[in-house]
Amino acid sequence: MEALTALQKRLQQAHDLNMAMSLLGWDQQVNMPPGGAEHRASQLATLSRLQHELFTAEETGRLLEAAEAAADGLHYESDEASLLRVARHDYDLATRVPTDLVAELTRVTALAHEKWAAARANDDYAAFKPWLQQIVDLSLQVAEALGYEDRVYDALLDQYEPGMKTATVARLFNELKEVQIPLIRAIAEQAGAIDNSILTRDYDAQRQEQFSLEVARQLGYDFERGRLDVAVHPFTTNFGTNDVRITTRYERNWLPAALFGTIHEAGHAMYEQGSGASIAGTMLEGGTSLGIHESQSRLWENLVGRSRAFWTYYFPRLQALFPETLDGIDLETFYRAINRVQPSLIRVEADEVTYNMHIIIRFELENDLLEGRLSVDDAPEAWNAKYEEYLGLRPPTDREGILQDIHWSGGMIGYFPTYSLGNLMSVPFFDKAVAAHPNIPDEIAQGRFDTLLNWLQAHIYQHGRKYMPAELFQKVTGEIMSAGPYLAYLQEKYGEIYDL
Amino acid sequence: MEALTALQKRLQQAHDLNMAMSLLGWDQQVNMPPGGAEHRASQLATLSRLQHELFTAEETGRLLEAAEAAADGLHYESDEASLLRVARHDYDLATRVPTDLVAELTRVTALAHEKWAAARANDDYAAFKPWLQQIVDLSLQVAEALGYEDRVYDALLDQYEPGMKTATVARLFNELKEVQIPLIRAIAEQAGAIDNSILTRDYDAQRQEQFSLEVARQLGYDFERGRLDVAVHPFTTNFGTNDVRITTRYERNWLPAALFGTIHEAGHAMYEQGSGASIAGTMLEGGTSLGIHESQSRLWENLVGRSRAFWTYYFPRLQALFPETLDGIDLETFYRAINRVQPSLIRVEADEVTYNMHIIIRFELENDLLEGRLSVDDAPEAWNAKYEEYLGLRPPTDREGILQDIHWSGGMIGYFPTYSLGNLMSVPFFDKAVAAHPNIPDEIAQGRFDTLLNWLQAHIYQHGRKYMPAELFQKVTGEIMSAGPYLAYLQEKYGEIYDL
Repeated sequence: MEALTALQKRLQQAHDLNMAMSLLGWDQQVNMPPGGAEHRASQLATLSRLQHELFTAEETGRLLEAAEAAADGLHYESDEASLLRVARHDYDLATRVPTDLVAELTRVTALAHEKWAAARANDDYAAFKPWLQQIVDLSLQVAEALGYEDRVYDALLDQYEPGMKTATVARLFNELKEVQIPLIRAIAEQAGAIDNSILTRDYDAQRQEQFSLEVARQLGYDFERGRLDVAVHPFTTNFGTNDVRITTRYERNWLPAALFGTIHEAGHAMYEQGSGASIAGTMLEGGTSLGIHESQSRLWENLVGRSRAFWTYYFPRLQALFPETLDGIDLETFYRAINRVQPSLIRVEADEVTYNMHIIIRFELENDLLEGRLSVDDAPEAWNAKYEEYLGLRPPTDREGILQDIHWSGGMIGYFPTYSLGNLMSVPFFDKAVAAHPNIPDEIAQGRFDTLLNWLQAHIYQHGRKYMPAELFQKVTGEIMSAGPYLAYLQEKYGEIYDL
Repeated sequence: MEALTALQKRLQQAHDLNMAMSLLGWDQQVNMPPGGAEHRASQLATLSRLQHELFTAEETGRLLEAAEAAADGLHYESDEASLLRVARHDYDLATRVPTDLVAELTRVTALAHEKWAAARANDDYAAFKPWLQQIVDLSLQVAEALGYEDRVYDALLDQYEPGMKTATVARLFNELKEVQIPLIRAIAEQAGAIDNSILTRDYDAQRQEQFSLEVARQLGYDFERGRLDVAVHPFTTNFGTNDVRITTRYERNWLPAALFGTIHEAGHAMYEQGSGASIAGTMLEGGTSLGIHESQSRLWENLVGRSRAFWTYYFPRLQALFPETLDGIDLETFYRAINRVQPSLIRVEADEVTYNMHIIIRFELENDLLEGRLSVDDAPEAWNAKYEEYLGLRPPTDREGILQDIHWSGGMIGYFPTYSLGNLMSVPFFDKAVAAHPNIPDEIAQGRFDTLLNWLQAHIYQHGRKYMPAELFQKVTGEIMSAGPYLAYLQEKYGEIYDL
């Protein structure tokens, strides 16, 4: 096992470089003075180049092959065998795309990002269009380099959700549409049923922070191995299992931003903090895919944080913190306000019922663009038509339409579905935990989350990247992924709220 | 000049790695949650190893030689010629010490640091003694590997103050002793003349921070390219000329800690922020030696910050910020309080008049240990005897004596003299600026520092590492370094304060 030891050492260095880059990125968004931008770009480029050279070197491939050849005795679930699987997956991904293509993609996306930001600011799709075309073309080349059996999109999707297939996503998304579109229409008929204006009252930022800290701590986010800071675009990052940091944003006149943003990020972070001790600090730590990651942030944000049980405990506390703002408001009014459904044009502002529609639109357009059924010329009109069909709204501008997301300008085609896959998986995971411990909802109503967290820890978090997403899902739930549980959850919760 | 371009690229990567390490270190002291320590150590070790491999590779030496061979046409003061000199200096330093010796030194100092911390806590010199012996022995090996002509100490000193010789330091220090020891004794006879108890009153930390920020900004520290945070042991660090960060510590009952600590660090930071645009972000940016660096922190802290002119402007402001604490105190009382001379056992608490004595003691003992005139067994007694002779105080414990400093446990023998060299150089630099612009003291009394800062910027800061310290000193002052100006300054200032 000499090769394995040498491989581990090499992978550790590559992982350490990735973690250092994460810190440089965190600092850039949380602390860096404006003047530091240029130096930081150079430092990140150097670390990235060294990481790539080290990880994709022929020596890495040689050690990996030698270690694989000698791996017969290893148990599938062992750290060693898992490391070989994950390293093989990442190595193939990193080496299949030719260096020239990687460099071209880096160059084009750097420029495209600037062009997109300007185009969005000026509501000028024409200025972004040639860049979108280039990114579609380069994505096709990347897909060819990575290889795929069925759909070109498979190769791109696999970068974010290993093993997931386009056909599976399409089937799941069709099931969602069949139920969610009628549900959205039924709720739209009762648009006036819920008033959420209490959430736009004046909420002092410092007291919001106090509440965020209390909730995050009580959920189980470990501040001995993390911290909460402010960032314009909230995110979670980690420099190893034992240093996982979250960020949030306090808006005086929109309470949900920090409230649910913090719970969402704490969900991501508890997953990251939960890697088993034997894999902490190694390449195996962290989340196994974006979809599984999102299942955890959504589980905590929506299934816990937007539940009646949760607010049975927390609403009196929130009221005590904001007496002048929430005096005279009852739990039920608050619960309905935070769960108000309102079709909108902007994905990041969407509620639970409409969110998946935003994702499905992007998924369908990405496939149409890649498979030649749609040109970049016609893309805005296709975007708008789908918004009208699925959400009953037509974007008046491209700024509120096809130009709203950063993803495409960064070359991230294939990424969006992971958001909805996270939603879909969150419910069966939660149901399974409750089936094992039926007292979980009662505990939540008492502000106790340890039974739930311990279950997630034991069944999901501790494994880090050991299992592929579908493998982990089946191991935990005993089932193949389907849309049923999530749709049942939506229908029950919102049927009750909107009296359907 | 192909070799030069390739060399520049390689040196840039090595420099970027160093800057990334600085950020990991800054974060460790300012933000890192306790759990992150182990991961961080691994990340720093990896970056350090990669930096060392990259910088000391034969390829670096080959490119350096080739670039030097083709450097005939380059002007001595050009960025390119300067880069070759600095790279040659650093490359020789980094490659002359055998890898095994570097590894052994890393191993021993990591352990020695822990042993020292425990020994200091328990006042147990015997527990640290064998480690001090090992560090002396390893330092001798390092000195032999680096090479020297005259004294073994030359090789060690050169790591921190390039080009400086032990004989020069000894001569300067003897001049200091001749004047400072009698001065300290004369002041000691008037021990009761100044009461500084107003500085130990209650000063709210938040208002101290407000004052620190105002002063740092007004001196000329650029917050667009820096920030001020809190750290247990204040320091300055940079990730390039355009991101230089300072830290301070607020003590409720000791106003000078944050007050002069912030000015001191701002002095270091303005030097770092001042590198010329063409060398910013490269290996040539930053300070050229620890001594020159300290000359700047001391110049701002003492010659500016502890001057009567400075407080003519700032004392009314400080009073307005702390009305209940400083009401009825006049400028003169405050000025005398912050300049009170009091021989003490602890270096980091020493005033301007006694500080150099602490350094001279360490310098003399380091030489005695290295040249075999003193054994580690006898070192505490030698330490105590010198304190008695130079400062009139005998440490009652080794904790307040030979165990107080972290430096030796980290293998930093040869470092201490740079503190006093900084003191010595601060005065001729300041005098030269005032000679060129006699209105500087008047401007200081009006809270204006731009003439002084611009002069320092033009004559010292912009050059970064282009000139060796003695070369820079002579270029700026037209003189060889001597103790005269500093001693004249001390005698004048303290003669007046203590009416000698």
